[in-house]
Amino acid sequence: MSKIIKIAVDAMGGDNSPKKIIDGINHHYKSNTNTFYQIFGDKEKIQNYINQLPTSSFEIIHTKDLVKGTDSPLEGAKRGKNTSMWLAIQSVKEKKSDIVISAGNTGALLVISKLNLKMIENIDKPALSALWPNKKNMSVVLDLGANIECSPKNLIDFSIMGSSLFKSLYPDDTAKVALLNIGSEEIKGNETIKETYQQLNQRNNTDFEFKGYIEGNQLMNGDVNVIVADGFTGNIALKTAEGTANFITSELKKAMTGNIIGKISSLLNISNLKKFKERLDPRLYNGAIFIGLDSPVIKSHGGTDYIGFSNSLSVCTRIVTGNLIEKIRNNIS
Amino acid sequence: MSKIIKIAVDAMGGDNSPKKIIDGINHHYKSNTNTFYQIFGDKEKIQNYINQLPTSSFEIIHTKDLVKGTDSPLEGAKRGKNTSMWLAIQSVKEKKSDIVISAGNTGALLVISKLNLKMIENIDKPALSALWPNKKNMSVVLDLGANIECSPKNLIDFSIMGSSLFKSLYPDDTAKVALLNIGSEEIKGNETIKETYQQLNQRNNTDFEFKGYIEGNQLMNGDVNVIVADGFTGNIALKTAEGTANFITSELKKAMTGNIIGKISSLLNISNLKKFKERLDPRLYNGAIFIGLDSPVIKSHGGTDYIGFSNSLSVCTRIVTGNLIEKIRNNIS
Repeated sequence: MSKIIKIAVDAMGGDNSPKKIIDGINHHYKSNTNTFYQIFGDKEKIQNYINQLPTSSFEIIHTKDLVKGTDSPLEGAKRGKNTSMWLAIQSVKEKKSDIVISAGNTGALLVISKLNLKMIENIDKPALSALWPNKKNMSVVLDLGANIECSPKNLIDFSIMGSSLFKSLYPDDTAKVALLNIGSEEIKGNETIKETYQQLNQRNNTDFEFKGYIEGNQLMNGDVNVIVADGFTGNIALKTAEGTANFITSELKKAMTGNIIGKISSLLNISNLKKFKERLDPRLYNGAIFIGLDSPVIKSHGGTDYIGFSNSLSVCTRIVTGNLIEKIRNNIS
Repeated sequence: MSKIIKIAVDAMGGDNSPKKIIDGINHHYKSNTNTFYQIFGDKEKIQNYINQLPTSSFEIIHTKDLVKGTDSPLEGAKRGKNTSMWLAIQSVKEKKSDIVISAGNTGALLVISKLNLKMIENIDKPALSALWPNKKNMSVVLDLGANIECSPKNLIDFSIMGSSLFKSLYPDDTAKVALLNIGSEEIKGNETIKETYQQLNQRNNTDFEFKGYIEGNQLMNGDVNVIVADGFTGNIALKTAEGTANFITSELKKAMTGNIIGKISSLLNISNLKKFKERLDPRLYNGAIFIGLDSPVIKSHGGTDYIGFSNSLSVCTRIVTGNLIEKIRNNIS
C-alpha cells in the first residue's frame, strides 16, 4: 500500500463552505484512498456532509473561529490562532500534515503562512503560482501577485521553484523556463529582466532548460511550460487572460443562441461544445500554489464548486508525491 | 461638400505591399470620397493596383528606398530621408497631409516620427495606443510599449491623450478612464500607480470621468473605455489577450470540426459563427495610434489584409474629423 498522504483542510473558506469542501473531499477520496484529511472548522456543519468516507480516513478539529472573505490580510491574521485557517497551517508547521489547502481569503492565507512557516533556505521571497492550459498540456506561471517588486535573484528563485513544481506535477516532462517580456530580443525589457536573462543564461541549469523571453501572445503555445514574471506583471497577464476568455465565451454564447437555427445546431453540436468547455474548464486548473515556504500551501478558488476543490486536492496529492519541497531544496543549492 | 481629408500613405510597409495598401485605398475611397491620398513608394508597382480611383483623389510620390520589416528602429531611420516611410512623415510635418499611415516597421515609424515631428506642448512622452473590443463597444488602451518606465505625469498625460482619442472616435460617448492595476483597492499597486491615482482623483477632470483602477479580468466589460498603463504592462496585457483569443478560437475550431456531427452542425450554424467571427475580427480594430506628437501617426498591422488596412484608413478619417490634436491641446492645458 502506498504511503498515506496527510492533507490539512481549512473547511470554512470560500463560497458555500463547508459543503463544497466536504463534497470535494468525498469526491477526491474515491480515487485517492491513500489520503488522510485533517479537517478544520465547525464540526456540526462539517458532519452533515461527510458520507461514505471511512472514519479512518479523516479527523475533524473543531473551531468556530474563521477568517472572512472580506477581511484585509491583516484583519484575517488578527482573528487569531484559533481560526480554521490558522489551525490548518499550524498542522503542517507541526508536521502533522504534508500540505495545507484553503479556499478562503488569499491575502490572509499568505500572511498567516508567512507568520508560521519558515522560508526554504536560500529563497528570499515566496511566490504565488498557478497552472495555465496551453496547446500541448499545462504551464506553471509565477509570481501572480505576492511580490510587486522583484530583483533578478527573486526571478531566478522563481525559475527554480516553478520548474521544481512543474517536475513534481509532470515528472516525465522537461521543465522549460521563459521570462515574460515585451519582446523576444535580448535588448528589450526593463533592467531587472535583462539582468535575470544574463544570469540564467550563464547559470548551469541542470533542473530546467532556459528558453529566454516569451511574449504574452505565445504564453499558450506550449513551447515553454514555466513562465516567470514579477507579481505585478504576472497578475496582469493572468487576469487579462481570464477576462479575454470570459469575453470570448460570452460572445460565442450570444452568437450560438441568437436564433432558432443557432439553438438547433448548438444542440446537435452539444458533444463537441462540451469537449470544448471541458478543455477550458477553469476548475481543471483551479488553485494557486504558494511556494518558497518549507511546506506547500494550496489556495483553491473561493468561487469554485466541489469538483474544482477536488481538483485542487489532486494537485495536493501530486505535489506531495512529487516531493516538491525536497526538489526545490536540491535545485536551489 | 465636406472638407477634403489628406492622408499620407507609406505604400511599401508590411506583408504583400504595395498591393494590399492600394487595394485598401480603393476600398476605403468607396465610402470616403472626400479623401485625398498622398501615396509614397515605387510608382511602377503602385500603378498596377490603382483602379477606379479618380486621378483627382491621389498623387504618387515615387521613391525606391524603403525601410525593411527586419530593420532595427535605428537601422530603419538610417536608411535615410528618401524612404517611403520618411517621406510620408515629412508630408504631415510640412502640413501637406493631415495624418500619416504605415503598415511597416513599428520601431522605425516611432523613431522617424519622433525625429521629424514636435511633441504637443506639455506632453513629455508620446504613447502607442490601440482599440480593443469590449462587451459594449470599444476601448482605447495605452501605452502599448513606447515607454517602459513611466512617471505619474506620463500616465496622466496618457489619460488625457487617450480620452481625447476616444472622444475623436466616439464623439457621442463619455470617456471613462481607469488605470490598469492588480487590485481595485486604493492601497494596491506600485508607487507610480498609487501616486497617479491620487493626482487623477484630485484633478478637475472635465474631459473624462476617472473610474479608478481596473483589473485585467474586467478589461472587456465595457465599464470603462480608456485604459491606461505603462508601456511594459500595457504590452503584456495586449499580447496576452491576443494569445488567449488565438488559443480559445483554435480549441473551438478543433472541437467544432472533430467529427461529422460537428461538421454538419457547424455548417448549419454558419451564420451565427460568422457573426461571432465578425465581432472578434482583429481587422476591425487593426492599427495602433501613436499620439503625443503634433500630427497623428497611424500604424496598421503588417500582417493584415486590404480590409484591415482600409479599416485603419477609416480610423485616420475619424481622427482627422474628430480634431484629435486640437482636443489634446485643449485638454492638456
